[in-house]
Amino acid sequence: MPLPITFLSDYGTADDFVGVCHAVIARIAPSARVVDLTHGIARHDVRSGALTLQRALPYAAAGVHLAVVDPDVGTPGRRAVALRCGEDDRCLVGPDNGLLALAAERFGGVVEAVELGRSRHRLEPLSATFHGRDLFAPVAAQLSAGAALGDAGEPLDPQELVGLELPCATLSDGALHAHALAFDRYGNVALDVSHEQLAGSGLRLGRAVTVNGQRAQFAQTFADVAPNALIVYEDAYRSLAVAVNRGSAEQELGLALDAEVHIAAAE
Amino acid sequence: MPLPITFLSDYGTADDFVGVCHAVIARIAPSARVVDLTHGIARHDVRSGALTLQRALPYAAAGVHLAVVDPDVGTPGRRAVALRCGEDDRCLVGPDNGLLALAAERFGGVVEAVELGRSRHRLEPLSATFHGRDLFAPVAAQLSAGAALGDAGEPLDPQELVGLELPCATLSDGALHAHALAFDRYGNVALDVSHEQLAGSGLRLGRAVTVNGQRAQFAQTFADVAPNALIVYEDAYRSLAVAVNRGSAEQELGLALDAEVHIAAAE
Amino acid sequence: MPLPITFLSDYGTADDFVGVCHAVIARIAPSARVVDLTHGIARHDVRSGALTLQRALPYAAAGVHLAVVDPDVGTPGRRAVALRCGEDDRCLVGPDNGLLALAAERFGGVVEAVELGRSRHRLEPLSATFHGRDLFAPVAAQLSAGAALGDAGEPLDPQELVGLELPCATLSDGALHAHALAFDRYGNVALDVSHEQLAGSGLRLGRAVTVNGQRAQFAQTFADVAPNALIVYEDAYRSLAVAVNRGSAEQELGLALDAEVHIAAAE
Repeated sequence: MPLPITFLSDYGTADDFVGVCHAVIARIAPSARVVDLTHGIARHDVRSGALTLQRALPYAAAGVHLAVVDPDVGTPGRRAVALRCGEDDRCLVGPDNGLLALAAERFGGVVEAVELGRSRHRLEPLSATFHGRDLFAPVAAQLSAGAALGDAGEPLDPQELVGLELPCATLSDGALHAHALAFDRYGNVALDVSHEQLAGSGLRLGRAVTVNGQRAQFAQTFADVAPNALIVYEDAYRSLAVAVNRGSAEQELGLALDAEVHIAAAE
Repeated sequence: MPLPITFLSDYGTADDFVGVCHAVIARIAPSARVVDLTHGIARHDVRSGALTLQRALPYAAAGVHLAVVDPDVGTPGRRAVALRCGEDDRCLVGPDNGLLALAAERFGGVVEAVELGRSRHRLEPLSATFHGRDLFAPVAAQLSAGAALGDAGEPLDPQELVGLELPCATLSDGALHAHALAFDRYGNVALDVSHEQLAGSGLRLGRAVTVNGQRAQFAQTFADVAPNALIVYEDAYRSLAVAVNRGSAEQELGLALDAEVHIAAAE
Repeated sequence: MPLPITFLSDYGTADDFVGVCHAVIARIAPSARVVDLTHGIARHDVRSGALTLQRALPYAAAGVHLAVVDPDVGTPGRRAVALRCGEDDRCLVGPDNGLLALAAERFGGVVEAVELGRSRHRLEPLSATFHGRDLFAPVAAQLSAGAALGDAGEPLDPQELVGLELPCATLSDGALHAHALAFDRYGNVALDVSHEQLAGSGLRLGRAVTVNGQRAQFAQTFADVAPNALIVYEDAYRSLAVAVNRGSAEQELGLALDAEVHIAAAE
């Protein structure tokens, strides 16, 4: 029985990019199950792809996890890789640009890595721009079908893998000094505050707080606050977020990526 | 062999909501086939979801039918349910807000119902806002894999289920007094007129009619009328609809949801 | 084991059209694998659908290839067909409007054809507008499940099939006289120049060229040129294309479909 495959990309669904990758996989591993996590990652947004993988993969069965957000495809400096994680032998396949870093960390770190540039599994001729089809999809399918990771490419020291720089929230005097980690299409703002950091803060559910000086409510769901009110809440992945009920917190607070977001109990 | 699953929601495809639900299902029921009916239901549009389920499900094999359009997720008044229908043992899983009502009616009514709030199949911690992932998807997958409906939650009297209020067309003097039931993205207007009501009216295919006083053609396809002409036709689900060829009947007639639409033979 | 199915259409994903076709297929061929190539073909754009099929299908396993871009559905002049190609016994199913023509040619031409209008596999009542659901999907599923092509409809002389007119690039004095074959959503322009024609031209990778008199670079990837610079390149399907790095070549060059695009070495 082939290993299950998940697939995430920034290819969108308007074109045939995703479909052709599926076709390539189905040809090599006809009975492998492929779950599309999403192909709606904003174009070239490696960080957003990495965060989505990190939070979505724990819900997926262990197997082969294919991910393609690849702004530097075809340039000499960018490596293509396949990785094996310490937990559950999960395999990650994609560009070595930080996209896989958070998921790898989540599953026990990388215990084996290969560089795929001349992989025996690649399709020929290898295009300069569509490595999803020609390199990553065939490698993922071969791994699903039982090929050994070591046979997919050249050995690579896991220490050499590209990491992902993220801001890091701190806690002082019971206030959270956080940052805007990601925005969704509604203007909701994900913060770099974990469930554990939140628990250590002085913030209590149902209480008034300030967000960069503006009054907000620390509540459980949007339904708990009035329309257009600012709300601080734990999202479905237990990360802290800021939103405006039926509005955009991104706009209301004028936040850019990595901008500072201070949250304190209101007086 | 697991039961086939269908899945409908208003999650869209820009985010990973749908993908994560698929991952959860694949983990529990690795060989279950899942057909995505659509995830493009307008956000929180329970009625449109219910109408789509009602018309689409007869084309799907009997099995487990998962549906999530859930504006009140996380609020105390909204129940989560799984239902068994009288026909084909079809199971419906979703919020008890009317979303499942028309499909249940279509398949012989509800013969068994359970409330899922504390279902043994739920994922922990249960999030406040993503019951698709934490509650509905795992229940649907377990039912597909052979779990009994009665084991999925607490018994519930089918009489207590929330219904769906719909307008109701009438026929008098050979004219149809209908209502705008739903709009699609082209501004085509679905009416609350069944194939049977239409047959009982005085309207004949190919004849001129009036729609709220405006001249129109009762025709079979758009190709039968001139560009910008108003057309009354039976759509692919044999429901009566009004459209403007290459235009928007919604705008042309200035219709809101449930607005009256009078159709009579033209003199 | 059922034959694998691919599915391409202009149905989009906002509605349940694609999902209902999947449901119909799953009912007839419950264990057939269906790969969605794309449903984002521009509405009624038969040529774009034909080009996408032609380039995508070589990556897919041989099987049944369902395609629906069908502006004339329901009109008397438009035939519905299923075709068998000379290579790999690939079957194509869809409207006879040129959509299948390029793929058929790519796979050795049509060796057997049937007209599906009264196919025994069709769903009743056959709607006037949704032949994807009522005719094409059930025929594709039956072929996948092992039904003979000849049993799907009435025999048809392959010579009578509708072709697809395309412009045809020529080469003179080392310059390419090409045409705009298709545009993608970024304004990149696909040309009617094959890998072989390009090899025969005087153009050399890395050199400056002119495109309709404007200076451009013949390069391998976008990263090779400056932002807003015009680039001529072979796309991932080895067809020549023109683009503006982070811009729109369609707008920059003011091109319409089939417009002439002259490419010559720069002096």
